[in-house]
Amino acid sequence: MTSLILGIDFGGSKNTVGLVKNDSKRLLDNRRQKSAPNASAQSDLDSVLEMSRELLALYPGRLRAVGVSFGGPVDYQNGTVKLSYHVSGWEEYPLKDQLQKEFGVPVSVDNDANAGALGEWYFGAGGKCSSLFYITVSTGIGGGWVLNGSPYRGANSLAGEIGHMVVAPTGPICVCGKRGCLEALASGTAISYHAVARMKTESGTGTTLRHLCDNNLEFITSELVSYAAKEGDELAKELLLDAARFLGIGIAQVLLLMNPERIVLGGGVTKAGKFYWDEVYRSILEHVLPGISIDVVQAQLIDEAPLWGAIALANQLLLK
Amino acid sequence: MTSLILGIDFGGSKNTVGLVKNDSKRLLDNRRQKSAPNASAQSDLDSVLEMSRELLALYPGRLRAVGVSFGGPVDYQNGTVKLSYHVSGWEEYPLKDQLQKEFGVPVSVDNDANAGALGEWYFGAGGKCSSLFYITVSTGIGGGWVLNGSPYRGANSLAGEIGHMVVAPTGPICVCGKRGCLEALASGTAISYHAVARMKTESGTGTTLRHLCDNNLEFITSELVSYAAKEGDELAKELLLDAARFLGIGIAQVLLLMNPERIVLGGGVTKAGKFYWDEVYRSILEHVLPGISIDVVQAQLIDEAPLWGAIALANQLLLK
Repeated sequence: MTSLILGIDFGGSKNTVGLVKNDSKRLLDNRRQKSAPNASAQSDLDSVLEMSRELLALYPGRLRAVGVSFGGPVDYQNGTVKLSYHVSGWEEYPLKDQLQKEFGVPVSVDNDANAGALGEWYFGAGGKCSSLFYITVSTGIGGGWVLNGSPYRGANSLAGEIGHMVVAPTGPICVCGKRGCLEALASGTAISYHAVARMKTESGTGTTLRHLCDNNLEFITSELVSYAAKEGDELAKELLLDAARFLGIGIAQVLLLMNPERIVLGGGVTKAGKFYWDEVYRSILEHVLPGISIDVVQAQLIDEAPLWGAIALANQLLLK
Repeated sequence: MTSLILGIDFGGSKNTVGLVKNDSKRLLDNRRQKSAPNASAQSDLDSVLEMSRELLALYPGRLRAVGVSFGGPVDYQNGTVKLSYHVSGWEEYPLKDQLQKEFGVPVSVDNDANAGALGEWYFGAGGKCSSLFYITVSTGIGGGWVLNGSPYRGANSLAGEIGHMVVAPTGPICVCGKRGCLEALASGTAISYHAVARMKTESGTGTTLRHLCDNNLEFITSELVSYAAKEGDELAKELLLDAARFLGIGIAQVLLLMNPERIVLGGGVTKAGKFYWDEVYRSILEHVLPGISIDVVQAQLIDEAPLWGAIALANQLLLK
């Protein structure tokens, strides 16, 4: 009988389930659903269970394990979600226990940064190297480690918080309350925030950006900034170069402290183009020591990294 | 027949060998010799071999393995010393091969930061925790990792370079050429450098310090600054508090990125006293995220950490 693995990605705004045959690198099938406008933990869970049952009914075989990526802090040891920043009702939710009861097989639950790291390591740009750091630069900035083939989570499942490393002590205040965190300087949120602030005070700048948002500055996003930069908007380009420079400083600190074999860089902001990547590299080189190899590559799985990470988590359960 | 383990510490200014029975936490005996004024790799090696032969002749038994801590960069994989900053002739020296020929047993060679980390983990303040970072704040600032019971060295044996993490981007130039490295702000060298600079431009400050060095500012060391602070010198205290604050920022970055179970802090500068440690803690708390546990303890083995790390390296060879 075919052995099946189920991967689940609770993504905050959308949930995805994917089914694979054991050891396969190709999805048999998947289902995706946006979270309801007033989604709760229960409605997300109901939706995920319904999609899972649908898939399992379509593909005969024996379910062996379930892996879960959750978009928020998770206590990996006991499989409990600490909270979600997007959906209510997840506080201290025993997700692993609940899913083990539902499916009757071993379940592994981790946060999306660790899952994304494991996904890229196992199925994507990581190439199963001995030490990998995965960075996702999106609304926020997160990171996850894979060392010697396993996620390294740290003492409180909080390793990888590169977004809150301080790269400019006199910089802007971050959502965490500290000053000059990488996230406050290089995330998508930071880029759009700084774009709006600059356009409000400098009337002559950001012509293309203003055009793109029809002069409604509240519609500015980091995607629009990227697009404007490609269209030649000088302000947009300057903001992205600043963000890239700070990201390079953050990555250099990672290289100095851990000297990982490879860094996999993903997330919407990193799609800004070659000039952005060139500046990230230039800044890393400026801030690192000689002798430390710099192997920074683009994520391959893009938005699918957490789902594939969930599948890899389930695979790891079967190896034990 | 008694199984014996030999540990060797090439310390730059002095070399030490120690002999233990397998699995013992007590030295049978040891020998130490200062490096000659014009020491070379050959003279250091001759001295170490002579001390080793003397010890082995005194204690009957079968030598099973040799572990080596080297005060400078080492390629762990092939056991080659890259160079010494203190003694000439070590460039690309195949130390492991050479010692395996001499002793006819397996040899393991690592740098002193990694060895110190392993020594503290195995025999000292590390308590065999699952993830440990060891920091030594002395002339320079170095660090080493022990993850899951083994030194984590990174892709180029260069992990742990906390001394060159940037904690103040507009700060002073470091020996490495970058600006605002932790080493340029919190090492013993930095503390004495800043003390001299301040006393040269501010005639009314550092009364006790001036007295202690008989107004010969070239005799100022970080030990003197520590001593003056204990005697109530305001300038000395201010300089140590600044250094402690920057060290706390550096440690917070380590906690954010790796969330280690424990940090072991050693080296001469950390002997400055309670006010120094209090400021390190305060600064860590200011710069870390909630939920990350902060377990920063004083090194126990002090100057002996590299020697005990060498012994632990040899022990690990026997476990394979």
